[in-house]
Amino acid sequence: MLIESIHSPADIKELNTAQLTALAAEIRSGLMNRLSKCGGHFGPNFGIVEATIALHYVFESPKDKFVFDVSHQCYTHKILTGRKDAFFDDACFGDVSGYTNPEESEHDFFNVGHTSTSVSLACGLAKSRDLKGETGNVIAIIGDGSLSGGEALEGLDFAAELGSNFIIVVNDNDMSIAENHGGLYQNLKALRESNGSCCNNLFRAMGLDYRFVADGNNIAALIEAFSAVKDIDHPTVVHIVTKKGKGYTPAETEKENWHWHMPFDPETGKSPASGSGENYGDLTCEFLLKKMKADKRVVTMVAAVPVCIGFSPDKRKDAGAQFIDVGIAEEHAIAMASGIAKSGGKPVFATHSSFFQRTYDQLSQDLCINSNPATLLVNTASVYGMHDITHLGIFDIAMMSNIPNLVYLAPTNCEEYFAMLEWSIEQDKYPVAIRIPCNGVHHTAQPVDTDYNSLNRYQVIQQGTKTAILALGDFYQIGEALAKLIAEKTGIAPTLINPRYITGLDDAMLEQLKADHDTVITLEDGILNGGFGEKIARFFGPSDMKVHCFGLKKEFLDRYAVEDVLKANHLTPEQIYKDVFEGGKQ
Amino acid sequence: MLIESIHSPADIKELNTAQLTALAAEIRSGLMNRLSKCGGHFGPNFGIVEATIALHYVFESPKDKFVFDVSHQCYTHKILTGRKDAFFDDACFGDVSGYTNPEESEHDFFNVGHTSTSVSLACGLAKSRDLKGETGNVIAIIGDGSLSGGEALEGLDFAAELGSNFIIVVNDNDMSIAENHGGLYQNLKALRESNGSCCNNLFRAMGLDYRFVADGNNIAALIEAFSAVKDIDHPTVVHIVTKKGKGYTPAETEKENWHWHMPFDPETGKSPASGSGENYGDLTCEFLLKKMKADKRVVTMVAAVPVCIGFSPDKRKDAGAQFIDVGIAEEHAIAMASGIAKSGGKPVFATHSSFFQRTYDQLSQDLCINSNPATLLVNTASVYGMHDITHLGIFDIAMMSNIPNLVYLAPTNCEEYFAMLEWSIEQDKYPVAIRIPCNGVHHTAQPVDTDYNSLNRYQVIQQGTKTAILALGDFYQIGEALAKLIAEKTGIAPTLINPRYITGLDDAMLEQLKADHDTVITLEDGILNGGFGEKIARFFGPSDMKVHCFGLKKEFLDRYAVEDVLKANHLTPEQIYKDVFEGGKQ
Repeated sequence: MLIESIHSPADIKELNTAQLTALAAEIRSGLMNRLSKCGGHFGPNFGIVEATIALHYVFESPKDKFVFDVSHQCYTHKILTGRKDAFFDDACFGDVSGYTNPEESEHDFFNVGHTSTSVSLACGLAKSRDLKGETGNVIAIIGDGSLSGGEALEGLDFAAELGSNFIIVVNDNDMSIAENHGGLYQNLKALRESNGSCCNNLFRAMGLDYRFVADGNNIAALIEAFSAVKDIDHPTVVHIVTKKGKGYTPAETEKENWHWHMPFDPETGKSPASGSGENYGDLTCEFLLKKMKADKRVVTMVAAVPVCIGFSPDKRKDAGAQFIDVGIAEEHAIAMASGIAKSGGKPVFATHSSFFQRTYDQLSQDLCINSNPATLLVNTASVYGMHDITHLGIFDIAMMSNIPNLVYLAPTNCEEYFAMLEWSIEQDKYPVAIRIPCNGVHHTAQPVDTDYNSLNRYQVIQQGTKTAILALGDFYQIGEALAKLIAEKTGIAPTLINPRYITGLDDAMLEQLKADHDTVITLEDGILNGGFGEKIARFFGPSDMKVHCFGLKKEFLDRYAVEDVLKANHLTPEQIYKDVFEGGKQ
Repeated sequence: MLIESIHSPADIKELNTAQLTALAAEIRSGLMNRLSKCGGHFGPNFGIVEATIALHYVFESPKDKFVFDVSHQCYTHKILTGRKDAFFDDACFGDVSGYTNPEESEHDFFNVGHTSTSVSLACGLAKSRDLKGETGNVIAIIGDGSLSGGEALEGLDFAAELGSNFIIVVNDNDMSIAENHGGLYQNLKALRESNGSCCNNLFRAMGLDYRFVADGNNIAALIEAFSAVKDIDHPTVVHIVTKKGKGYTPAETEKENWHWHMPFDPETGKSPASGSGENYGDLTCEFLLKKMKADKRVVTMVAAVPVCIGFSPDKRKDAGAQFIDVGIAEEHAIAMASGIAKSGGKPVFATHSSFFQRTYDQLSQDLCINSNPATLLVNTASVYGMHDITHLGIFDIAMMSNIPNLVYLAPTNCEEYFAMLEWSIEQDKYPVAIRIPCNGVHHTAQPVDTDYNSLNRYQVIQQGTKTAILALGDFYQIGEALAKLIAEKTGIAPTLINPRYITGLDDAMLEQLKADHDTVITLEDGILNGGFGEKIARFFGPSDMKVHCFGLKKEFLDRYAVEDVLKANHLTPEQIYKDVFEGGKQ
């Protein structure tokens, strides 16, 4: 096996094309080993094996610097740069993350996880090189799906100004996670069909030089192209056409399903049956489809992650023109949603908490200043959400709840979630965001409010005395357990409150608590800094009320076990009780 | 005068080309009247008079919908849509804002003030029209300077997917506020020089149809082009070439100075001498120039607003390759700064608080997750900053201080500001942001710290008892005055603290306050929600300490008098004293 003697990129320089091709097959077996057992990004990695080999063969990393966009396609790069054990040796799976990571290797320059950042990051490396009078190539590797993102387009536009060595490898597999959306993809298609020579070339229009590689899975062709641009003295694009998922038939044919995949049996491609049916993605999709059929003003919008709210290809087809995937273009999505709402449409835009971070200015400027009544669904907004450092869902309360005019709701169960969603779609006064619950599907037999027009009215679930618990959203169940514990231990039942509204205080209710409570406990599934509990603490600041806020520390977690994080933040009922009533160190 | 009979767009339909041209001259006189007396955006408005007339002549607003990008160039549009008095009649100047405003007119669909939003907002209007089966044209009007913004490029990319009537007027005057930056401007140049026929056409590459108008200040040519695309059934760009500032020679020749201009004498083009010399823009420029000459790793970066830190054309030239204007591309700027810092450069990126809103994800992902040591200067970050609803500088603390790893500093005087800036540039551990003071240039004779490496150490300015004032940044002077007042009225001198660090608590100092203080007052020049004071309130929540937080309400202010806003938020020493010590209603 060739791979056994590959410990760094230098070790592939002596191989010939046939050997490099054999190496590609061995690498795919390593990828298969890890992916079938751990799960991860399949299609993107299988499609770029040859190109990664060719890049390391031609260039000299880390003097020549690679920056992978998103970096979910960096597995082969990791294998070639001293981390192959994490793919071939099951015991070493935990050695690497799913993205580039400077803590693992000098061949990785940045932690990356969001899209469209590689060109700009690489521009910085290039600019620094030039100012210091150093040499070396700087290469950004970006997929076609990422090109629709504003930051990538800003980067492509700026790159021409560098006036020095700068290489952008555009890995075109004609796929985002789902199908691509946007006019520039027609251009990529025209370039593919004309062997890179058609008239209107987006990259040349951006002032960049350009070469085309028709078969981006052919090592010899790639080596030839990369060699031709090595040490080039001006910014240039190398447009390579690859096959997403190449080397594994299920991934080649069902590209959307195999973008990211759970652990599976390599023989069949099948995963063990997932847990018992209900999940908010499918439930939301079902709800929205019904709404859209009944009312053609309702529009469901996503930004390249349709499946986060259950819109598989069939469902998208079913929704027809009322389903819009803008591609990776969240800023555009929010502004467009504002425009739709302005003219009487009923837009519902959904994406992950982490990706809403890309829209702060549009939320504030385009949507909220105009107070246009759009509905935003914030997914995986929770410590229970995604665990990679670049995909955390614990910052959205801090980011969004301090924007004026936005009504941000936190449901505590399934019935409440859909009541809020129904209300939000039908009302025409407020821009509304709703945190999709992320802690399993909880049902309630209690009636839930259907009208949220009178803002900031909290709901008393259980009236008690002395201690009041404000248990927001996904931490409501922790609040319930805490209330029981307090009643048991103190003999006094506390007041349990479901705030519902993240963005405002129920002044009257909070004022009233002063009469017969001396302690308020707040619980929120997000960082405390800039969060909900701090607003409560400020309200009671001038009073005698003691306020204890529980939530997450302001930090970037990475690949964590939820239970560990909850414990570290004292988020179990026992720990909360101890901190509040037994002088535990919070 | 023709203008006297123009009360709505319908009134220009009967005019012939000669009359429309005469109308343009009359409109310029109205613009001159307002701008010379009030100040405002000069060049953009003078350059687009003919195009705006032609748009209203050909189309039927508001059935046909116009969306102006940034909307600072909408003055002629306002004149033609019933608001001419605000330009011709001095008594009516206050009737209109400097941007489109739905509260003023049905011909304005959005409050807009940030760049690059028009295409996306308009896509929403178009999509809604199509879903409802309605008719009418949707027209976005965007300047070439705005095209470099990611959101605009996302919008252009998406527009082709609409598959229905959608018109994008690209107003190309070959200028941003300063000169343009980016490869796509080479393409615009090639299009201008080839009468719109050159090979690589960025807009066609984005899947859009395209027409070119060589003289965008010629009404007949414009009418012909707009008529040709009226009711078109697919997305199309009309690329018009205009002369920024046309009709007033100083504005035509000194385009950068006349983008926005103070009130002036129309005869000479001169403004009254501005206030006494010192301002942070010039001081910062001077400091950075010196730094850059001494150390070629230091790089000053801006995103299209070089003058916010004093970099006039001469100074930019002086800085040479160490000065980078990325154009309107703040996301790219932050990522690029991260890349520069990663490879040993020392980047300093400056823009307005309001424009930092465009970079939230890049601050979090590209910069802070990687903890790369870039320096960010946040300008007009204050209630004393810009007063238009779309340019407020009161949200940056809430937005930025809750991002992990960022060190956000608030200086209270000139010496402290430059000490922080010096430290930040020289250190290599933290991503640092500094709020440039905005309340006039205050000097101190006291020594200031030069080393900020030990994070979150607050500074006691005056040791007292009973009451502690944490006076952050620009509100430090209010804190000083408050301390005096408290000493006078109560006979007990309070403790006055300069926190310096917005992003963290001095736990030891705050803990120590408990010994001999019962009241803490926080002051911050920004909204309270998500701000500094709330963190202090949370710290003291479980204790007996009374905490009173003062700052701004969470709301979008618009064209306000600072004194009124301070009073409404009880931000005078007298009001604070009353609220805290005399049970005034806060």
